[in-house]
Amino acid sequence: MRIALDAMGTDLAPEPEVAGALQALQHLDADVEIVLVGEEKAVRAELAKHGGAPPRLSVLHAPDRVLASDPPASVIRRKPDSSIVVGLRLHQEGAADAFVSAGSTGAIMATSLFTLRPLPGVDRPAVATTLPTVAGPCLLIDSGANVDCKPQHLVQFAHLGNVYAHDAMGVEKPRVALLNIGEEPEKGSEVIVETHGLLAREAGLHFIGNIEGRDIILGACDVAVCDGFVGNVLLKFYESVAGFLVSLLKAELAGRRPSEKLENVFRVFDYAEYGGAPLLGVGGVSIICHGESPPKAIHNALAVAARSVRSDMVKHSVRGVSARAKA
Amino acid sequence: MRIALDAMGTDLAPEPEVAGALQALQHLDADVEIVLVGEEKAVRAELAKHGGAPPRLSVLHAPDRVLASDPPASVIRRKPDSSIVVGLRLHQEGAADAFVSAGSTGAIMATSLFTLRPLPGVDRPAVATTLPTVAGPCLLIDSGANVDCKPQHLVQFAHLGNVYAHDAMGVEKPRVALLNIGEEPEKGSEVIVETHGLLAREAGLHFIGNIEGRDIILGACDVAVCDGFVGNVLLKFYESVAGFLVSLLKAELAGRRPSEKLENVFRVFDYAEYGGAPLLGVGGVSIICHGESPPKAIHNALAVAARSVRSDMVKHSVRGVSARAKA
Repeated sequence: MRIALDAMGTDLAPEPEVAGALQALQHLDADVEIVLVGEEKAVRAELAKHGGAPPRLSVLHAPDRVLASDPPASVIRRKPDSSIVVGLRLHQEGAADAFVSAGSTGAIMATSLFTLRPLPGVDRPAVATTLPTVAGPCLLIDSGANVDCKPQHLVQFAHLGNVYAHDAMGVEKPRVALLNIGEEPEKGSEVIVETHGLLAREAGLHFIGNIEGRDIILGACDVAVCDGFVGNVLLKFYESVAGFLVSLLKAELAGRRPSEKLENVFRVFDYAEYGGAPLLGVGGVSIICHGESPPKAIHNALAVAARSVRSDMVKHSVRGVSARAKA
Repeated sequence: MRIALDAMGTDLAPEPEVAGALQALQHLDADVEIVLVGEEKAVRAELAKHGGAPPRLSVLHAPDRVLASDPPASVIRRKPDSSIVVGLRLHQEGAADAFVSAGSTGAIMATSLFTLRPLPGVDRPAVATTLPTVAGPCLLIDSGANVDCKPQHLVQFAHLGNVYAHDAMGVEKPRVALLNIGEEPEKGSEVIVETHGLLAREAGLHFIGNIEGRDIILGACDVAVCDGFVGNVLLKFYESVAGFLVSLLKAELAGRRPSEKLENVFRVFDYAEYGGAPLLGVGGVSIICHGESPPKAIHNALAVAARSVRSDMVKHSVRGVSARAKA
């Protein structure tokens, strides 16, 4: 298996990418190869600091780089030699089995859609993010790709999230829930009420009904389905609140050793543990990382990509969504 | 000024209500009177524990009580002798200037709408909640009353929140923002993009543009405008995350005295400090408290009610919304 890693994605690129790739190679199965896609000179210089490229690590030159200011939809046309376009083309052509990048989220999404194409039965691919909870990660889908959603889109998200939670997160029978403002089926907006009705009759899903905002942190479900507007507001809010409280906690400790329980909390709220957000519903594995990802986050994103490839997640997604189409 | 306080609202009623009312009378201006509305025998028995009713405190008998299982819209018809209906009638008839209750949110909203009526120019009254941030409270409107909103509703919320932040929260020139998934005016759902255009041209508002989920905790605005679906999910999520982390923090301290900074955090995240959520856009002052409110929260809600009455908040709301109607 070969994973293409955008070497120019993070704010500090290529340093975290190179360090993360080297870490990953030590921990992932021996058949995993990584291709660092980026400005070859810069990547090789960074590799030299670690004693050069080990076996199973190669470099593919991509002289251009996508900037935050580049309009996402135009990147594929205007920056064909950028690390994002070159890396995704490699995946599209079959020379790589997955793509991982910490570059511009919009550009990765747009270019993934263009190169990998939506899967049959998927109207709108969605970004899924793992939220830390007291009982393990909860997959929030959609967390920002689609702001105006119809019920059938939300049902597709449910299937995509279900397959990902099973295949990449290792949840045997994912509890899929609809994020709402009340537990009763008749609560919520028109779209959400209709979606509840569809999900309740949907085959191939363990739908546990509505959950409220307060249930997420308690780990009430494995997959929380919502539109990209609600998901994005919630995700950004959570990151900032958790970050704020954790920094206060650390300041309060003032160098004292935290209890085991607190260590665990720090780990729970450390997004680097979670390894990137997959774009689900496209014909490939495309994982989006934070622009501030440290090596550990890159390493974990590569691990998630490897699990997604190994488990045949894309094939299962097609099956999940088309089971729906027949129902 | 006279405030009607539902004595039967909290889960432990009438204990927190009686204690909160007594606290409030010690701190509020000398012209504030409180009417405890509820089962007279129970209320008087509770008062007796505190040495009986002091001056400026009276009891109005309301033999019936609204239960969580009562359909909100039917309460006014089916439970005319309940503390919620009797208290709001008192306000409607002018014998009280405000109403405060920790009872069923749905029943308070529905009965307030029926008795106090929406203000001229207000299509949909909204519930506003104060979220703790590092830089003082942020008013989230709507936090649950209206799930499907049109742009004109959101613009009305902006005016109602603006007046409340000024009059009841004491913010000189409230920074009003639209909660969105990006800062740019063209970002977001169709409704939000259109709302942004309206707010940008709106007179009588200090509109600072879009804010994202991550900006709230940093205190980027005084009033955050959103529909009741997003607001409710966010509010419940926040309460649970903050509650979870604060409880962990306290456990970690294990009896040690927290630093001043941490004391401050505990205070920031203590909803009892904030004194209830007003239903804005009706012809009166109706404040909704948590069902688990301790005396301090009841006290603060009474203080908020007094400030709203004193500042002529309702009159200013009419002016704010009708300035809009003319524009």
